[in-house]
Amino acid sequence: MKDRDCLALRLRADRLQLLDQSRLPQTRGWIAVDDVETLVEAIHALRARGAPMIAIASALFVAVRAAMGDDKNTIESVIDTLRAARPTAVNLMHAMDAQRGALDAPDWRSAVIETAEGLFDHDRALCGAMAEHGAALIQPGERLLTHCNTGGLATAGIGTALGVIRRAHEQGKDISVWVDETRPLLQGARLTAWELAELGIDYRLIADSMAASFMAAGAVDRVIVGADRIAANGDFANKIGTYGLAVLAHHHRIPFCVVAPHTTIDARCPSGDAIPIEQRAAAEVRGVAGAAGELCWAPADAPVANPAFDITPAALITSWIIDTGVYDAAAVATGALEAAATPHETEDAHMKAPS
Amino acid sequence: MKDRDCLALRLRADRLQLLDQSRLPQTRGWIAVDDVETLVEAIHALRARGAPMIAIASALFVAVRAAMGDDKNTIESVIDTLRAARPTAVNLMHAMDAQRGALDAPDWRSAVIETAEGLFDHDRALCGAMAEHGAALIQPGERLLTHCNTGGLATAGIGTALGVIRRAHEQGKDISVWVDETRPLLQGARLTAWELAELGIDYRLIADSMAASFMAAGAVDRVIVGADRIAANGDFANKIGTYGLAVLAHHHRIPFCVVAPHTTIDARCPSGDAIPIEQRAAAEVRGVAGAAGELCWAPADAPVANPAFDITPAALITSWIIDTGVYDAAAVATGALEAAATPHETEDAHMKAPS
Repeated sequence: MKDRDCLALRLRADRLQLLDQSRLPQTRGWIAVDDVETLVEAIHALRARGAPMIAIASALFVAVRAAMGDDKNTIESVIDTLRAARPTAVNLMHAMDAQRGALDAPDWRSAVIETAEGLFDHDRALCGAMAEHGAALIQPGERLLTHCNTGGLATAGIGTALGVIRRAHEQGKDISVWVDETRPLLQGARLTAWELAELGIDYRLIADSMAASFMAAGAVDRVIVGADRIAANGDFANKIGTYGLAVLAHHHRIPFCVVAPHTTIDARCPSGDAIPIEQRAAAEVRGVAGAAGELCWAPADAPVANPAFDITPAALITSWIIDTGVYDAAAVATGALEAAATPHETEDAHMKAPS
Repeated sequence: MKDRDCLALRLRADRLQLLDQSRLPQTRGWIAVDDVETLVEAIHALRARGAPMIAIASALFVAVRAAMGDDKNTIESVIDTLRAARPTAVNLMHAMDAQRGALDAPDWRSAVIETAEGLFDHDRALCGAMAEHGAALIQPGERLLTHCNTGGLATAGIGTALGVIRRAHEQGKDISVWVDETRPLLQGARLTAWELAELGIDYRLIADSMAASFMAAGAVDRVIVGADRIAANGDFANKIGTYGLAVLAHHHRIPFCVVAPHTTIDARCPSGDAIPIEQRAAAEVRGVAGAAGELCWAPADAPVANPAFDITPAALITSWIIDTGVYDAAAVATGALEAAATPHETEDAHMKAPS
């Protein structure tokens, strides 16, 4: 396999390595992914994260196993295990379905490798297309608010929502960013703050509960977020806290934009009600753990609820920024997202028999 | 002076001690308040907190200094220093104004001591009255959502919003409570969770950004919070995050109630626009510090915004639960809160010349 490199993933000499994002920004450590258990644990522990990134890492791991000579049954079992690793994000399921299809090709080893390489290269191109479409909407001087991390760490390319922000910055639009810290796992405080600083983009970190106050003060011109799964009707799942931001943006008449590749659209999912929400461990809410250290500040036995995602209904969304174009509510209501998902299905079909 | 005791304050043999709330629930340590600098630091560091509690602690400290023989000029300077210790909470200002008035009495030492003792006893009675009025609104089986800490730690009595919850629980109403963790200083996770567990009240701790999602799921019947200052028109300042909850409650048609003693009403403040908002240190948002330990998880130099409070406009409030009664928007619009503040001013006048 050809070597591949991006901010949070390396494929070198048929060996997959992932940046351990749970330990950023204090520690920049790489995990060697030599077995499926390591990858599943990395996904569960959010060492590997971002809906596109976990899809690509998983597809590449399947390809590595094929290149290393694993038999077809073993590969099938690896695909099934990875497909179930995160229930909310759909990109992973799409990527695993593509790999399962590749197994049917006469030269299935090559097909699996080509599929993975294609997904990697494709994701970079999708990021570029989203960034172009999205940046065209951003006005000079805009103060954007974002949640969680949707940048180079979350994709093989420059990101989804953060890719749009980056492109607008590169266009000299003098933007600034309010960064929600994104409790409980602090992807905003740890990852987005770090990426924006590296990119030289002006930002300020805030606690999630402060967003409303800055909206009321007129200091937020646009909310821009990523997605883990977009239903056919435009509802989408994203990091917990996104739905609240959408309600707040609606109340303050602030545009609310979701940015995702068409691989995040689940055309078979009619609405957000059909998207399963991952529930996570109580310890994440009772305290924090990472390279900075581990603390439990709540009573050690505090009962907790910890849904990792929430659903934002289409009615609260101003623009869906997809690699295929920018859609408004009217376009989405007439099936634009289902149509946008089609290139993906065509591509899947292509990947199922690449040779 | 007579000894006094409540959850977070002790007056014993003319010596004031405060429970260090910044170290709860891991450590139960008491601070001996022997000089004004110790008390001001305790207020700034939120070792002593809760708008009623810092008012009462400050009034008692002034009384202790009077009992210990400090001269009138020294006492005046102590009053001025304490009055400025927290700009948003008005109870402290009211208490210091009462003590300044007491200095004009012929027997000013006795007057200052009686004023402080009166404020302590009065606050307990006010908590009882709020609890009665508020609990009458709570239906059996209600699932309430609260923010920050408004219980026995924040007052001399059973609390404001948490006092209402406690009374409803004592009335056998089978309630349960969603507890916002309340970043950045985690008063919900550290203090409210601890108080509710001690009281045997069913609760679940959540990250602040999860509240919207549980509202959308129909799992929140009422939002109930305290206040640091209520303006004459009904707008109020409270812990950052309160305003967002009010918008979310409005969107989901969930009743939103604020609970405070009439000493929290600032009749001279026409609206929320006139309430100053304390801005706090960046380190609080970059990480956390307390008895559980100290961590910085964000980039060490991350630029931060950290307003400690926000303003909730009257239009988003269903009920103002005051010791003098429960008011709706119509009552507030016709001056009910200004009228409710009057007993306070009468009492101040009384305290100015107690003998």
